[in-house]
Amino acid sequence: MATSLISRQLALSLQKNLWLSAPGCRHVSKAAAKTQVEFDYDGPSMKTTVPGPRSQELAKQLGDIQNVGAVHFFCNYEESRGNYLVDADGNRMLDLYTQISSIPIGYNHPALHKLMSNPNNLTTFVNRPALGILPPDNFPDKITESLLSVAPIGMTRVQTMACGSCSNENAFKAMFIWYRNKERGVSGPSDEELTSCMINQAPGCPDLSILSFMGGFHGRTLGCLATTHSKIIHKLDVPSFDWPIAPFPKLQYPLEEFTRENAQEEARCLEEVEDLIVKWRQKGKPVAGIVIEPIQAEGGDNHASVDFFSKLRNIARKHGCAFHVDEVQTGGGCTGKFWAHEHWGMDDPADIVSFSKKLLTGGYFHKDALQADKAYRIFNTWMGDPSKNLFLAEVLNVIRRENLLEEVTRSGKALLNGLYELQAQYPGLLSRARGQGTFCAIDICDDKTRDRLLLQARDKGVFLGGCGDRSIRFRPALIFKEYHVHLFLNIFNDLLAQHK
Amino acid sequence: MATSLISRQLALSLQKNLWLSAPGCRHVSKAAAKTQVEFDYDGPSMKTTVPGPRSQELAKQLGDIQNVGAVHFFCNYEESRGNYLVDADGNRMLDLYTQISSIPIGYNHPALHKLMSNPNNLTTFVNRPALGILPPDNFPDKITESLLSVAPIGMTRVQTMACGSCSNENAFKAMFIWYRNKERGVSGPSDEELTSCMINQAPGCPDLSILSFMGGFHGRTLGCLATTHSKIIHKLDVPSFDWPIAPFPKLQYPLEEFTRENAQEEARCLEEVEDLIVKWRQKGKPVAGIVIEPIQAEGGDNHASVDFFSKLRNIARKHGCAFHVDEVQTGGGCTGKFWAHEHWGMDDPADIVSFSKKLLTGGYFHKDALQADKAYRIFNTWMGDPSKNLFLAEVLNVIRRENLLEEVTRSGKALLNGLYELQAQYPGLLSRARGQGTFCAIDICDDKTRDRLLLQARDKGVFLGGCGDRSIRFRPALIFKEYHVHLFLNIFNDLLAQHK
Repeated sequence: MATSLISRQLALSLQKNLWLSAPGCRHVSKAAAKTQVEFDYDGPSMKTTVPGPRSQELAKQLGDIQNVGAVHFFCNYEESRGNYLVDADGNRMLDLYTQISSIPIGYNHPALHKLMSNPNNLTTFVNRPALGILPPDNFPDKITESLLSVAPIGMTRVQTMACGSCSNENAFKAMFIWYRNKERGVSGPSDEELTSCMINQAPGCPDLSILSFMGGFHGRTLGCLATTHSKIIHKLDVPSFDWPIAPFPKLQYPLEEFTRENAQEEARCLEEVEDLIVKWRQKGKPVAGIVIEPIQAEGGDNHASVDFFSKLRNIARKHGCAFHVDEVQTGGGCTGKFWAHEHWGMDDPADIVSFSKKLLTGGYFHKDALQADKAYRIFNTWMGDPSKNLFLAEVLNVIRRENLLEEVTRSGKALLNGLYELQAQYPGLLSRARGQGTFCAIDICDDKTRDRLLLQARDKGVFLGGCGDRSIRFRPALIFKEYHVHLFLNIFNDLLAQHK
Repeated sequence: MATSLISRQLALSLQKNLWLSAPGCRHVSKAAAKTQVEFDYDGPSMKTTVPGPRSQELAKQLGDIQNVGAVHFFCNYEESRGNYLVDADGNRMLDLYTQISSIPIGYNHPALHKLMSNPNNLTTFVNRPALGILPPDNFPDKITESLLSVAPIGMTRVQTMACGSCSNENAFKAMFIWYRNKERGVSGPSDEELTSCMINQAPGCPDLSILSFMGGFHGRTLGCLATTHSKIIHKLDVPSFDWPIAPFPKLQYPLEEFTRENAQEEARCLEEVEDLIVKWRQKGKPVAGIVIEPIQAEGGDNHASVDFFSKLRNIARKHGCAFHVDEVQTGGGCTGKFWAHEHWGMDDPADIVSFSKKLLTGGYFHKDALQADKAYRIFNTWMGDPSKNLFLAEVLNVIRRENLLEEVTRSGKALLNGLYELQAQYPGLLSRARGQGTFCAIDICDDKTRDRLLLQARDKGVFLGGCGDRSIRFRPALIFKEYHVHLFLNIFNDLLAQHK
């Protein structure tokens, strides 16, 4: 491995050469990189098309055990470093997808390896506790040091969970419990509630609902899936709940040219939200909570204005619905702020904020009122994993020490500007470049071209993901620097030139 | 720590002394222990009542962050060893609950520490992949070496998940998808299905159901919770599905005295299962699958006969329902076989078997037919965690090397015999001793006495869990030997003597 790693000085000089010698149009990406990642590679290095022969062999082997239809290729995680993912055939790709946005500070970050080499940490890995009944003695300190240090405004409470779906499922439960307790006031549950709940019937299992948005994605377990509306493949054949689904604004780009139209579109969606809340109340299925992503990710990187979120927040308040901001994909710094909802600049942005992916553990922050009134109402065996909290604490240290949120803002600006230039250059191919921080996306003319571009980029050493019908989403790690932006833009530009 | 650990020789001699000098009646537990666990402590050691002052202080601290109503005490996992859990106040308890049955080979097993000290394993912890799209190159081998080596009969396929609830949620989805594909035959989904599923409506989100049993526990996310019927606290205020719930046999003990009554009771339950399947089909909510635990755990350690399970399996087959055996709590060796359903001795015991807890990773095995026909239908970001598979492979090595299933059978026999003797001695207090392997339980006269006994046992250095209304459940690790059985029985006997 050491032989393929280069020193920082060498990298910068190579980068300059690469800049000058790389083929294709060079209208994009004029800035020189200022920073490099110490433990990173110098650039992509491709030995085969992807998947290569070794990956194909492994896919055949795994295919006897699991459905491998979604497997891109097999990875060599020992050799992967920083922004580069190395596959089983020795291909090294610049990774702008990072395991569906879940690798916060790149592969094999030295800080995380150092943590593993500390013998004091080993028992945390070896003895996974049932956190809800027998937490480790260092748990209050560890959770204060890690999760609470990034608690969203107005929230001092957090519940960890094992994954994003469990986080949202339990956040929904917290909202249902809160809503029913609010309805009951001081009186406890009736005998009828206590008996009917055991057989899945109302009033014990009440007909409450969660309002979600078309295009939203909140997970794939049955509760979450009732609020997920991004792709047919997620939902077909799975029983669901009759819960209200509001339209999410479909903004027209460039935003500055469609100010009036977009404002109208957002107003239309908000009006629909209020109508649905009223309608579902009349149907006897009151809306206990509204769940929304700050940027719809899986559904196509759909953005809405601060004004939209601010008004939506007010609607939730007005109708007594809890407001749940799902930051599973947007959280952890990729938008340039730790939470995407911080961009709204609101004093009281949410009642509940769920997370997972880059946070390494799942869970949700919540206001005091959203804490279940009794033990064992929000509960399972593991309730998270303290070994993930250990990693998270170190990830947060790295983010602070290396000012990664500022870096993300800087790289994100370079990336978005690059995408703007590319779409100006290839108007038939590209449109709707958009983003916040490095959480960017661009639309391709159609899904087939998008899919082909993704594969071609992969063969050229850039690993990207799609989202929505025909978008490419950018989900690099927080250590993705301007240098890497330009590397990507050059390769992408060459590809686009071939499509012209 | 080293000072409080003793050599095997010393332990055995101390054990002998303890045996002779311990107070209380000695009718129970006449056998001498033959084996000791190398890295274990010699016995409980109590310094304070539990929770002690340090635990109370920590509970106050954590109480500002989470609901701590379910927290028993805080633990020192560094100092915990083998069958002994050490708390934050230095109390060392014989652990017969093992983190809700989720610590397979005791605390800080040297084999797991050795695994952590192998530098080749570190990247597996540091880089958690999105297993469904970018598995590590060693994944097919690792999963073959670990999970597939214990695959239930008739199953060569396994899907890992992060926890028990996600395992069951996805097993349910696999059954729904299988059921609908079976109904469709060769034709694909209709346009109406494709559009209606996006808005949670039939036919795309069909009105299918899962039949479950009263007293069953399958998790607490919304889909799982619709099949969970063990305690009100789990279910109250959470919307649910109108799915059929069959009675689980309520057997009378001792079994040999109630052969006829119990056979009648099981026949009644089976009849009800068939009635419900027919009734729900007529309601337009056909039963796609039946989910059942081989021993209802959370619901009170309720057993049924092999004949019952065999007939139930046939009913599922007859009505075209998938048969899902939930081994989340029973799996992993605690019944003396790796899977509890192996005790049924059936050639075709299940279509799908879910697991978690002692397996360290969640997931489910399934027959080929239950594999989703397309990629991304059963999917999420992490789909398990390869670092847990690493541990599992090592746990399975230890189980084989140390013949732990035989040990469990031996200890289980000693435990159950001890419980039989105790209930003969305290007929007003104890009844219905039952179990398989060390997966044992006994009923206490009422819930208050049960709860008091649990606390008193804790203060005497034995940590136990309850289940059902008034049962105590025994869930020791697989390294729980006859020696530990006798230690427990002596302490428990002394407690009971005080209750006489």
